[in-house]
Formats: sequence, C-alpha cells, structure tokens
Amino acid sequence: MNATFNVLQDALIVQEVAPRDGLQIEPTWVDTVDKIALIDQLSGAGFSRIEAGSFVSPKAIPALRDGDAVFHGIRRNRDVIYVALVPNVKGAERAVAALADELNLVMSASQTHNRANMRMSCEQSLVGFGDIVSLVRGSHVSLNGTVATAFGCPFEGAIDEDRVMAIVDTYLELGLQGITLADTTGMANPRQVARIVGRALERLGPDALTLHFHNTRGLGLANVLAAYEAGARRFDAALGGLGGCPFAPGASGNICTEDLVNLCDEMGIPTGIDLVKLLELSRALPALLGHEVPGQLAKAGRNCDVHPVPDYVRSIV
Amino acid sequence: MNATFNVLQDALIVQEVAPRDGLQIEPTWVDTVDKIALIDQLSGAGFSRIEAGSFVSPKAIPALRDGDAVFHGIRRNRDVIYVALVPNVKGAERAVAALADELNLVMSASQTHNRANMRMSCEQSLVGFGDIVSLVRGSHVSLNGTVATAFGCPFEGAIDEDRVMAIVDTYLELGLQGITLADTTGMANPRQVARIVGRALERLGPDALTLHFHNTRGLGLANVLAAYEAGARRFDAALGGLGGCPFAPGASGNICTEDLVNLCDEMGIPTGIDLVKLLELSRALPALLGHEVPGQLAKAGRNCDVHPVPDYVRSIV
Repeated sequence: MNATFNVLQDALIVQEVAPRDGLQIEPTWVDTVDKIALIDQLSGAGFSRIEAGSFVSPKAIPALRDGDAVFHGIRRNRDVIYVALVPNVKGAERAVAALADELNLVMSASQTHNRANMRMSCEQSLVGFGDIVSLVRGSHVSLNGTVATAFGCPFEGAIDEDRVMAIVDTYLELGLQGITLADTTGMANPRQVARIVGRALERLGPDALTLHFHNTRGLGLANVLAAYEAGARRFDAALGGLGGCPFAPGASGNICTEDLVNLCDEMGIPTGIDLVKLLELSRALPALLGHEVPGQLAKAGRNCDVHPVPDYVRSIV
Repeated sequence: MNATFNVLQDALIVQEVAPRDGLQIEPTWVDTVDKIALIDQLSGAGFSRIEAGSFVSPKAIPALRDGDAVFHGIRRNRDVIYVALVPNVKGAERAVAALADELNLVMSASQTHNRANMRMSCEQSLVGFGDIVSLVRGSHVSLNGTVATAFGCPFEGAIDEDRVMAIVDTYLELGLQGITLADTTGMANPRQVARIVGRALERLGPDALTLHFHNTRGLGLANVLAAYEAGARRFDAALGGLGGCPFAPGASGNICTEDLVNLCDEMGIPTGIDLVKLLELSRALPALLGHEVPGQLAKAGRNCDVHPVPDYVRSIV
C-alpha cells in the first residue's frame, strides 16, 4: 500500500457518466430539460469530462433518444469535454452535428457480447471505427475507444488478456487518441486490474487511459485503488451509482461518483470536484427517477458530518 | 499493488458476525431456533470463528435477549470458536455459563461514543475488563478486546491514532489475547487503515489482530485489501452485509461475507469457506428478516455463473 502514497499528489480525473450510462437503463422517461439541467449542474461541480449522451438507435436505447436536443441544449462550460457514445458511423455523424467534443466508440472484447450488444461482429465494429476516423479527420473532435467486457463477459466468462491488449493495439493503430477498459458487468478483481493496467500503460500514457468499473459485486472502489496504484489516473463514475446490468436485478451499477470522490478526499487524492454539490445532486436523483439509488455516501453523509449525541445507541460495535 | 501478491498464499480468516452484529439491529424478532439453525449452517460452511451472540442487557438489545438459549442450542463444531460479545462482568458470567469459547469485550476509543453506547466512561469500562480477566483466569475461555470507533467517531469525528494505540497497549497489559480494531460507522479509508494496521502489528502478531469494517461509505472491501497488504489476516464480516448504523438509514452495514469471500476467491487468497453454501444462506435472509440485504454477490452471482445469450442487451458498456 505504501506505493500508493508516494504518488498521492497525482490527481485522479473523474469522467461523469450518469447522463449516459446511468440514464440509459432507467425505465422512467427523463425529460430533455431535466437531462440538460443535470448535465449543466454537473459541469458546475468541477468535472473536466462528462459523457452526456449517446447516439444509438432510439429503438435500442429509447431513454436516450433525445441526444441531439440534449447536446444542443446544454450550456457549454469551456473547462468541460462533452463526450458522446456512438456505436457506428451513423451515430458519429449525429454526434458531430450535435457538437460533441469527443466520440466514445464501443466494442466488446467478447465476440458473443458484441453480437448481443451491437448486433455485429468485432470485425464489423472495427470497420465502422475506421469510417469514423475518416469522418472526423481534420476536425477538433477526438476519439476514444472502449473495450467492453475487458475484465470478463457475462456470456463467455473469462476474457483472454492478450486479446484485450490486441484490441488496444488495434485502436491505437486506427488513430483513436484515448482508450477505456470497461468492466461492463463488474467481474474485475484488483489483482487482475493491476496486471491489465500495467500492460495497458506499456502502450499508452496515463492521460490516455480510462478505467470504467461497475460495482456489481462490490469491488468497484477496490478496483479503482488497484488501478490507481498501478498508474491509472482516469476513471468513469456515475452520480448515485446509477447504471447497472440487466442480468443482475438489484445489483449495483457503475461505481458511484460521490463515493469515489469521498474516498479521494479522505485519502488526500485531489479530484477538483465539489463533494457538497455532488451530494445535493445525488440526493435529488430518487425524486427524478422514482427509486432509491445505490450510492452510499448520500445516505451516510461525510465523515465530517458529525451527529448530535443521542441518549442511547444500539450499535455496540 | 505488487506487494500484495507476494503474500497471496497467506490465508485470510473470516470471523462471521451476522448472528451478533447483524441481528442486533433487526426490528423483526428472529426465533431462537432460527438463530441456532443459522449458526449451525454457518459452522458447516467452513468458518473457524463465529460471533454467535451477545450477553447485553435485554433492554438495550432486545433482539439478542435469548443469547443463553442460543449458545446452549447450537451443535458445537470442534473446528469453530464460538465468540460472545459482552459489555461487562455480568454479561461475561452469563457467557461463560453458556460455554462461549471466547469473550469479546468492547470499549470505544471515543469517550462520547462509549458513554452513549455503554453508559459508562472508558475508565469504567477498563475496570470492568479487569474483573472479566479475573473471572476467566485459569479457564479455557479466551478474551478479545475490541476498540470501537478506532477509525472515527460519528459524534467526535476524527480519533487520535495515538489514543487507539494506547488502548491496544492497555488491552494487552490487561491480558487480553486478541485485539479487534473496529470501524464502527464506516469512516476508515485505506491510507489510514494501512497506517494503523502497521502500528498495531508492531504490538501484536497477525494471528491476534482482527479488523472489523463497515461498508457505510462503500469502502469496506478496499479497506480489507489495504489491511491485508499491511499484514492483517483476520477480518469480521456479516452474511448478506447485515448490520448497520442507526445514524445512516439505508446505508450498508458490516462488510458482506460472501462479497469478501468472492473477492478472495477471485484473487487467489485462500479462506477455506464454501462460497456456494454462503450464497444459499445469504439468499434465505430476506425471507427470514422481511427485507432485502445489502450484499451484492447474492444478486449478481459469481463470475463463473455465466448467462445464456439473450436476443439483445441494453447495457452497451
């Protein structure tokens, strides 16, 4: 653990993904104006990167069918990079027209998952990525490539790490500037994370590598720390711990932004994010979405939020 | 992180505390026969230590008022040490009469918390501990001392680490064989844990030190890994993640046993505990208690529980 604390001055960059990965599986429709308000409030809380929506078929993800209106409606903060997830060149054209700063292209390391998720083979996905590279060439739009199911697949089980690294290499050869390794259904463990992050950082710098963890099996923040110790500095997280996996009803979703920022604050790792603002935003989610959310800090409060002394406590230990 | 994996062959010992720390705050009465059945099923799942109940005033903790009957009713497994929590010499007498193998004495590092929790000062607690040491002298009953609020107090905030170490020294001077450092309301962070565990292990061996973490702010398993890397080997955990803090409604309780064992299984850390049996027991808790429980693995399943491929997945990343 000591190795961590030699590099504590290194800031941890949080990319907020609730507007995309959080809202995409919500059964309740969130109005466009409410999506825009959420993104604008997030952009005032100190994030440098927000994944603000996706440009996917409205039949596939009806909850995000208003991506164009959302991107046109937000109040642009010059300190924030607004990212759009796109599955194919058609989505990329819409995202560019909506003035997304960065496109996040997604393919699964697992062929089975890519076919189920994207309705195409990995080879077909890569051909599409090549078309997107051509589309944005010469523009200011940057490209990030996500390797979904990089730490395990809910259908295939374990994923060969060499295959993940080969995809990273392919993405870099295609000209993608950033790479995200995604633990789509929360199967990663800290030992595996340290190993894979180490291999990825042989290929690209910490400014170009993002880790995307889900807390499906309760290991999300432990995986963040393992990745951080291995040199990673950029992490996706979702306000309230929104998001999730359709195969694990009741299980947690993405790692929770405010729980992560609290961890960083307590450990002295700078993030630049205002935790008090985050807690306000998180505590408004149940009213917006009609259900409780998995994040812990919004229920427990910060360590510094001390309680009045009661007559008697029934906790013992 | 590499430091971890040089010592991966070191087993991690889980003390199951659901029958005590989990059930004590449950509003629904759990019948004595059901408590006995739970403990007997746990003792068949590979645990070497189970905190099976407490001998506290029935007015203080009515949910555990049948401690005597529970300890007399369980089927003793010779491989299991059955621990009883006791707050004072009267409780110790009852626990000894009920044939507890080990007594767990509790005092808070925070004077304010000890007064609220135990209705006495720390000095009065220590006088009582001296009486308990005299009571069990020459018997086969062993004694463990817990330092509650060792990582923070919900009333006082931060707790001086020197004070925690002074209490550890006092416990050892009194003749207590084991020490538990308890993060009673989930305020610990991995950096602090590594530091405090390091200081504790200057005073006692890893076989005598237990860490008791709550997942109140989502950091429970990250704290376990930090403690493990710092040399700790014994951890309390509760089936289903039962337990909790009366000041954080809806927040998680103790770290969840099956989530911890899954982490260990995935990382190659031996525990000797049968995860399949644990999952069966955890999945029976909602019916026993009348509510969902915080543990994640029981909802998500193990990594190796792969899913059939659906027509379409709406998760994307």
